[in-house]
Amino acid sequence: MTSPEKIWTAGLVVIGDEILSGRTHDKNIAQVASWLQVQGIRLAEVRVVPDDQDRIIEAVNALRDANDYLFTTGGIGPTHDDITVDAVSAALDVPVVIHEDARALLERYYSDKGGLNEGRLRMARVPEGADLIPNRMSGAPGIRRGNVILMAGVPHITAGMLDALTGKLEGGAPLLTETIGCWVAESEIANLLRETEQAHENTQIGSYPFFRDGKVGANFVIRSTSEEDLKSCVDTLCDGLATSGYDFTPGGI
Amino acid sequence: MTSPEKIWTAGLVVIGDEILSGRTHDKNIAQVASWLQVQGIRLAEVRVVPDDQDRIIEAVNALRDANDYLFTTGGIGPTHDDITVDAVSAALDVPVVIHEDARALLERYYSDKGGLNEGRLRMARVPEGADLIPNRMSGAPGIRRGNVILMAGVPHITAGMLDALTGKLEGGAPLLTETIGCWVAESEIANLLRETEQAHENTQIGSYPFFRDGKVGANFVIRSTSEEDLKSCVDTLCDGLATSGYDFTPGGI
Repeated sequence: MTSPEKIWTAGLVVIGDEILSGRTHDKNIAQVASWLQVQGIRLAEVRVVPDDQDRIIEAVNALRDANDYLFTTGGIGPTHDDITVDAVSAALDVPVVIHEDARALLERYYSDKGGLNEGRLRMARVPEGADLIPNRMSGAPGIRRGNVILMAGVPHITAGMLDALTGKLEGGAPLLTETIGCWVAESEIANLLRETEQAHENTQIGSYPFFRDGKVGANFVIRSTSEEDLKSCVDTLCDGLATSGYDFTPGGI
Repeated sequence: MTSPEKIWTAGLVVIGDEILSGRTHDKNIAQVASWLQVQGIRLAEVRVVPDDQDRIIEAVNALRDANDYLFTTGGIGPTHDDITVDAVSAALDVPVVIHEDARALLERYYSDKGGLNEGRLRMARVPEGADLIPNRMSGAPGIRRGNVILMAGVPHITAGMLDALTGKLEGGAPLLTETIGCWVAESEIANLLRETEQAHENTQIGSYPFFRDGKVGANFVIRSTSEEDLKSCVDTLCDGLATSGYDFTPGGI
């Protein structure tokens, strides 16, 4: 029952000292991950690196070699610590150029805000050969060059760029998931979970325990790209829980 | 004025399909990062990897080679998808053994909850030569083997383990930070920021823009391990802002 279909994957490089210092809580990993699921692309790895050109280059090259797509968030603004375009251009071995459409966009956006200056013009710089990703929230666009996609660090701007990319990337079958919740300590039914997963090759079961209202419970998330395999695995797990005398809640608790 | 002092660094491997699927929003990166700052250890890189032994081994080895400490979060529970101990033992090239103190802890903890079983006993498994990190929240301890530290994925349990480690790791001078807030578009003063940072070698300035109450502003975070260098850089920046006619708010907006 294993699908011969290609699995499309993406890597994400989150760029910024502010994430590594704990000052800013990253919100882009979760939103990029959720968005990719719907595109039928699996997020295979994330690396969080500082505002350091060599470290960005290393992470970008490692993850773009290993995956179909490479996303970055952060470091495309107007200030000296925004070095993503330079680092990615170096990684791709292409020069940094001014994108004329980006310059025009920024000229319009800043026309009633004091006009373009050296810092603002930085946001028109792209790796040679890149296209722009519209950004309705602020002037500066995102950047796409082939399978490499550079997005903002500010989460609501990133969200707008993801929206603009929706349906534009080739992907495979979306990963389907179903959740079964149960008021049980996961450690009581570890065998059932393992055996159920092993009996259904094209599925994974994740176990996510919680402690609520003074009781322990867990949500079991079953994932598969095949609706049939997913259903079969869910049915086996629910039968096993019922046989062991546990009530369960489809959809999760 | 550059300090010859050693800079202590750590890598963090966040383990779990649930983070890469977007189902769970990671909270451990920020809490580990903030905690490390206070220990005088810099978080140099984070990798988020799936519940896959080879991928965990690769990330663990890459980050422990490059840093003084290696932390992991996730995958130390009782179920089949908890494979961190196996993967890290393989990375360290030591066998997995039952830690007798951990077994005793778990026996006590589960004595009124149905006793130990195969799944629960998994949580007593450690890389040979490891010590335990107390966990007051639930039965299962964290694990430390030299400079490699394995912690829970559930954030409040991780927090307890960090608490137990406080003051126990050798570090350097904590990174000091000061924040200056200003109602200015960061793109208007990009030159001032760059020149100020360049004039103060042992400091970094991060620029974090925001949009609030219909106005744009930014917080500038100045970082240094030297109190003297930090103060000098902050003074230069504030003088520059004042000279350009901007009000600013020490402590940030």
